[in-house]
Amino acid sequence: MQKGELLYEGKAKKVYRTDDPGVYLVEYKDDATAFNGLKKGVISGKGELNNKISAHFFRLLEGKGIATHFVKQVGEREMLVRALEIIPVEVVVRNIAAGSLARRLGMDEGTALPRPVVEYYYKSDELGDPMINDDHIAVLNLATGEEMSAIKKVALSVNEILRSYLTPRNLELVDFKLEFGRHEGKILLGDEISPDTCRFWDTRTKEKLDKDRFRRDLGGVEEAYQEVWRRLVG
Amino acid sequence: MQKGELLYEGKAKKVYRTDDPGVYLVEYKDDATAFNGLKKGVISGKGELNNKISAHFFRLLEGKGIATHFVKQVGEREMLVRALEIIPVEVVVRNIAAGSLARRLGMDEGTALPRPVVEYYYKSDELGDPMINDDHIAVLNLATGEEMSAIKKVALSVNEILRSYLTPRNLELVDFKLEFGRHEGKILLGDEISPDTCRFWDTRTKEKLDKDRFRRDLGGVEEAYQEVWRRLVG
Ligand SMILES: Nc1ncnc2c1ncn2[C@@H]1O[C@H](COP(=O)(O)OP(=O)(O)O)[C@@H](O)[C@H]1O
Ligand SMILES: Nc1ncnc2c1ncn2[C@@H]1O[C@H](COP(=O)(O)OP(=O)(O)O)[C@@H](O)[C@H]1O
Ligand SMILES: [Mg+2]
Ligand SMILES: [Mg+2]
Repeated sequence: MQKGELLYEGKAKKVYRTDDPGVYLVEYKDDATAFNGLKKGVISGKGELNNKISAHFFRLLEGKGIATHFVKQVGEREMLVRALEIIPVEVVVRNIAAGSLARRLGMDEGTALPRPVVEYYYKSDELGDPMINDDHIAVLNLATGEEMSAIKKVALSVNEILRSYLTPRNLELVDFKLEFGRHEGKILLGDEISPDTCRFWDTRTKEKLDKDRFRRDLGGVEEAYQEVWRRLVG
Repeated sequence: MQKGELLYEGKAKKVYRTDDPGVYLVEYKDDATAFNGLKKGVISGKGELNNKISAHFFRLLEGKGIATHFVKQVGEREMLVRALEIIPVEVVVRNIAAGSLARRLGMDEGTALPRPVVEYYYKSDELGDPMINDDHIAVLNLATGEEMSAIKKVALSVNEILRSYLTPRNLELVDFKLEFGRHEGKILLGDEISPDTCRFWDTRTKEKLDKDRFRRDLGGVEEAYQEVWRRLVG
């Protein structure tokens, strides 16, 4: 599969065309950003780790019947994916209060939620990714009501599958962000599933093993991503 | 009906017990606040106007089958209402982009929305009334899913009733905020419906006839509230 024209360079990945118009090549970068791009850095080894961690999760989910964009891993930091028309809604699922939810609701970080919470954010750098609801999505024409119901159901299934997989591996799935898109009339789970887009805590010590180490200057960022990988395959 | 113990003094109203435990007396104040209490002022005549405007709207809605807390007007700035266990969720309905919605979605103020948008805000001065969704309401235990579906339906009906009433009176209903509460096992529409809690624009000139005149230092605040009253009864 030929690496073609660079279609889009984002904050964490580059997306290229291939000789198959229905397939893109995603290249994971070592670049890290936080706070809507205000904080920038490089985490050496991140691209490679996020590529293999994401591939691992996409394979797991496909095996459980979730339709994803994943085709196959083709290099240390590259994977082939189905070309999506991305729906610009970040779908966040939360099991434990952290980050903006803890602030929004005045909860202590670490408070277990009695049931999962799903939130939608409008993927817009200019607007700072504001939280939105189904009515905003409708008036902005981002997705139909049926698409959003299907997406919410899949997001909650992904949560259950990932939690069941991570618990015996001593990782607590605090929260995570998904993106979905349209491909040949179907909604597929896209983007990535990695310590950049999930909060993983050590179940016992509550040590953070994700991008919060970068956001909050906790050090040991690469080591944390590596530890996640070790626990997934170990 | 005897005016009893002061139960609660809010930013715009005082709530008293009466000799009937199922009935409260609400006294509308001239005090005005904005930006979560950061801006304070007095709008002389506001208490009286908001009392009669709210009473007018509650009567209109009751006549159309909406269950409200309104019992009767008992003084220039006082009304009797059914005692509610208030659900701390502000229910905002919007027809035209303005204020925080215009900022959140990057729309020009005045853009007509293709359909009404309903938003929920957690009524919490300490947290600054953050926007929340159905899942937040569930984990905070603010209301059941059935209560929120019923509330959303009523809010949209109120919107249709008010719009039909206001359009021939040359008033555009841009958006408004409702509060609901529980009374003897039923959900009733509570609080107030006034230029403090609605955005009213002159249909032709788009002149603001509501609290935005106070928030944005446009002058003529009392006159605007009076003009709304005139158009309701004129
Ligand atoms: N299968 C796909 N098809 C097309 N675009 C995709 C696919 N998967 C992810 N994307 C998009 O690729 C872009 C690059 O990713 P990233 O660097 O994370 O960007 P961003 O800075 O927007 O977060 C994102 O806009 C993402 O939505
Ligand atoms: N029927 C009712 N029973 C009990 N409380 C009510 C009723 N209607 C409104 N309230 C409450 O009365 C309080 C006083 O109103 P207001 O001055 O607007 O307060 P706030 O500063 O909280 O907005 C509010 O908390 C409102 O929720
Ligand atoms: Mg991204
Ligand atoms: Mg109030």
